[in-house]
Amino acid sequence: MAKTNPGRFFEDYTLGQVIEHAVPRTVGSGERALYHALYPARHALYSSDEFALASGLPQSPLDDLAAFHVVFGKTVPDVSLNAVANLGYAEGRWLKQVYAGDTLRSTSEVIGLKQNSNGKTGVVYVRTRGMNQRDEVVMEYVRWVMVRKRDADAPAPETVVPELSKVIDPADLVIPEGLDFSRYDFAQAGESHRWGDYAVGETIDHVDGVTLEEAEHMMATRLWQNTAKVHFDATFRPDGQRLIYGGHIISLARALSFNGLANAQMIVGLNGGAHANPAFSGLTVKAWSEVLDKAETSAPGVGAIRLRLVATKGGTPFALKGEDGKYLPDVLLDLDYWALMPT
Amino acid sequence: MAKTNPGRFFEDYTLGQVIEHAVPRTVGSGERALYHALYPARHALYSSDEFALASGLPQSPLDDLAAFHVVFGKTVPDVSLNAVANLGYAEGRWLKQVYAGDTLRSTSEVIGLKQNSNGKTGVVYVRTRGMNQRDEVVMEYVRWVMVRKRDADAPAPETVVPELSKVIDPADLVIPEGLDFSRYDFAQAGESHRWGDYAVGETIDHVDGVTLEEAEHMMATRLWQNTAKVHFDATFRPDGQRLIYGGHIISLARALSFNGLANAQMIVGLNGGAHANPAFSGLTVKAWSEVLDKAETSAPGVGAIRLRLVATKGGTPFALKGEDGKYLPDVLLDLDYWALMPT
Amino acid sequence: MAKTNPGRFFEDYTLGQVIEHAVPRTVGSGERALYHALYPARHALYSSDEFALASGLPQSPLDDLAAFHVVFGKTVPDVSLNAVANLGYAEGRWLKQVYAGDTLRSTSEVIGLKQNSNGKTGVVYVRTRGMNQRDEVVMEYVRWVMVRKRDADAPAPETVVPELSKVIDPADLVIPEGLDFSRYDFAQAGESHRWGDYAVGETIDHVDGVTLEEAEHMMATRLWQNTAKVHFDATFRPDGQRLIYGGHIISLARALSFNGLANAQMIVGLNGGAHANPAFSGLTVKAWSEVLDKAETSAPGVGAIRLRLVATKGGTPFALKGEDGKYLPDVLLDLDYWALMPT
Repeated sequence: MAKTNPGRFFEDYTLGQVIEHAVPRTVGSGERALYHALYPARHALYSSDEFALASGLPQSPLDDLAAFHVVFGKTVPDVSLNAVANLGYAEGRWLKQVYAGDTLRSTSEVIGLKQNSNGKTGVVYVRTRGMNQRDEVVMEYVRWVMVRKRDADAPAPETVVPELSKVIDPADLVIPEGLDFSRYDFAQAGESHRWGDYAVGETIDHVDGVTLEEAEHMMATRLWQNTAKVHFDATFRPDGQRLIYGGHIISLARALSFNGLANAQMIVGLNGGAHANPAFSGLTVKAWSEVLDKAETSAPGVGAIRLRLVATKGGTPFALKGEDGKYLPDVLLDLDYWALMPT
Repeated sequence: MAKTNPGRFFEDYTLGQVIEHAVPRTVGSGERALYHALYPARHALYSSDEFALASGLPQSPLDDLAAFHVVFGKTVPDVSLNAVANLGYAEGRWLKQVYAGDTLRSTSEVIGLKQNSNGKTGVVYVRTRGMNQRDEVVMEYVRWVMVRKRDADAPAPETVVPELSKVIDPADLVIPEGLDFSRYDFAQAGESHRWGDYAVGETIDHVDGVTLEEAEHMMATRLWQNTAKVHFDATFRPDGQRLIYGGHIISLARALSFNGLANAQMIVGLNGGAHANPAFSGLTVKAWSEVLDKAETSAPGVGAIRLRLVATKGGTPFALKGEDGKYLPDVLLDLDYWALMPT
Repeated sequence: MAKTNPGRFFEDYTLGQVIEHAVPRTVGSGERALYHALYPARHALYSSDEFALASGLPQSPLDDLAAFHVVFGKTVPDVSLNAVANLGYAEGRWLKQVYAGDTLRSTSEVIGLKQNSNGKTGVVYVRTRGMNQRDEVVMEYVRWVMVRKRDADAPAPETVVPELSKVIDPADLVIPEGLDFSRYDFAQAGESHRWGDYAVGETIDHVDGVTLEEAEHMMATRLWQNTAKVHFDATFRPDGQRLIYGGHIISLARALSFNGLANAQMIVGLNGGAHANPAFSGLTVKAWSEVLDKAETSAPGVGAIRLRLVATKGGTPFALKGEDGKYLPDVLLDLDYWALMPT
């Protein structure tokens, strides 16, 4: 029997199944520095221990999206090795900050299964949790992917499609213990715009762009131990291109959004997201945001803001979908998240 | 009103104005490792904690140029976003070493203004200071840039051109507290040449070369949170090239100068510098040095050496300017600095 | 006299000569993170402090091959600057783990010399040792290279060819103090295959591939302060290609071998190795392994496994040499090593 991992096929998943993912990973100041080298990340809370201390945190945490990538990367060999498409995210919440020295591991629970009518593929819904070395859940999210069947004749499982919130109720967002923006230093943070300055419906063109490089997306994707062949092996696709990990575009767009949203410091909720079109080396990524909602929180000086973050490879800012309701060809990412901002 | 940073134009600067730059940054062992990955840096004091301890320092500091890049990077959104040209440096001094865990921030004071005769641009002179979390100034330098006017009809400010030293008086160089080269290990440092072995006027061809890569200069420039679009966005210039941050060439040339100047350990003064020609990915950078001056210091076993460091993209070593007094097309950088060396 | 390093020529080596290599290097969490960014490394012992603790180690060590690269890199300016070919390795043993904060240096002893019949080159055999800041030998290996003579008329030294073990006797492998795999967590490690599941003669196709990038191999090679011009300077070879450091291919192949050998955790012996063909950017590297031998050890739950690790740029897995006994053109690396595995 081959000793390599063939990945799971649709008929290998059962409702309620809990998959413990390998490999645990200790993160440190190296991962933090690499995040700053790979993305134009500038949010002050993740750049400066002093800024984090002044905000009530013990030190600067690992970027929330880096924590997400580490947790996500572990699921790839078990969930998406035979995936045809990454269909969506929902109910993502950051529950504990990750600090240098923490060791992360992940588990996924199968919460839904639906065979497609063609009989060749099916949709698997998993709720993934990332845990630290104290078994505290640092984040969780739901993801659903389309997976190939090994054997088209295998019987279809009972269809169970989980009911997922379209938006996380702001009351369910977890504010980091001790977070306090009441003495927030706007000059050091880079912009003067506070929570009260943003209006629902407002759009922001983040102006800056980054041209994608093979070495950069591969280093990032490897750093999170994401093993999907298609990101690393140019001989894998017929067109000889390496498909860029969708999470690379998420982190890049989020970092670009600093210019106009410098005070949207922490990501606490992931309402949904779509990788609208594939990204390849050589494209220049730009980003724009739309304010979808706002909510108060119980933490001193801390407001929540719901943002749509769109990454494009060109085109007109603020254009998202065509008349047919489909994403425009220039759109790479449509992400819906909650962030925390000084009021 | 747009929430993104439009950058300052010439008429936005006033004499004596002090600009506090965002974003504070904590540096650690990750930044140190990345510096060694991005440049062929081998100076022993920055490579080995043991070597630094034996030289009277508490541990190996962050490379002096990395400290410079972090301090410099913060000034870009406020000083050079609308700059047409980076014209010069002067009076740069390193005052305190930066160690893992330190958090740096920067301020700039406008010390000179001169509108150009075309009425469309002007020259801004700033003195920039980098501070650590104890409000100690870790380094300072003067830089002047040509900046566009927003409105050509805006009145010209009174012309003030600061008097700047062409060379830092060696008596004004700050020697790190405790620095002692009296038990210096030349074998471990890599070369036997001591301060006494270098003669004023001597030139050294550093022989080695490095071919520039997009991913490398972008990672370096991002790591210092330098946000200038032209370094990252291939669609920004009509020729589709990404202009490489001048500081990348400075660090590369300095690292190449190890071969022949392995004992020019610490940079303590920046007398001046010119980015003679732009650098792009694919060029192969070589370097040569000229000994401009030597001075004694009060620290045990420590001499100061003034060096001209020239980076080229080819051509004959030691050729700098043409008969017209202009830099030759192959010259990328002409830097004039003071370093500390075992006597 | 030129102050740059001309490198040693064949006649500069004498039997018994001990060369102390520059520059000492402190490694930390930055080097560890970069190793994970540059290679798809997933072995749990090197990824997780918790996993290392549960295996009896104080924390997760620096990857064994990273330690090898640091020790090796220092020898380049003294041993292989004028080398024509890297001919072989033998008797490599890892003796002490390297942890964040350790400072490494290297020495080499000349143990053999043999002038070639053409009179223009000769073979130099060195035994290299890497030491930490407590003067403990962390690893040692023998390497032999073909080096140019400065002067073809220089007299040949007495020929001494050292007798080198073809294979390290398993009894001579050094098992890390305290190592205990009796409570090994196979689920977290990523595979269920234990030492007992591997049969001598068994072959494993590691399936995954990585396409080589200039920025990645240069960053890796620089990180180990390997100064060989041919890796960095595209103008050095007539074909304008940068030759990739053989160690980069070793680390890449080893990381790829996780898929099928996830539990071959620690490398403790290097029996031999050949860089069969040169590697360049753009090639896609794949890997396969063959189980050459197995041995028991005295440590609880720990077995030793001798593996052949082959890196290729394509071709059929498990094909190594042609009928002429020469490596096939697709083979990049043939490495013979001992690893430790849970029984």
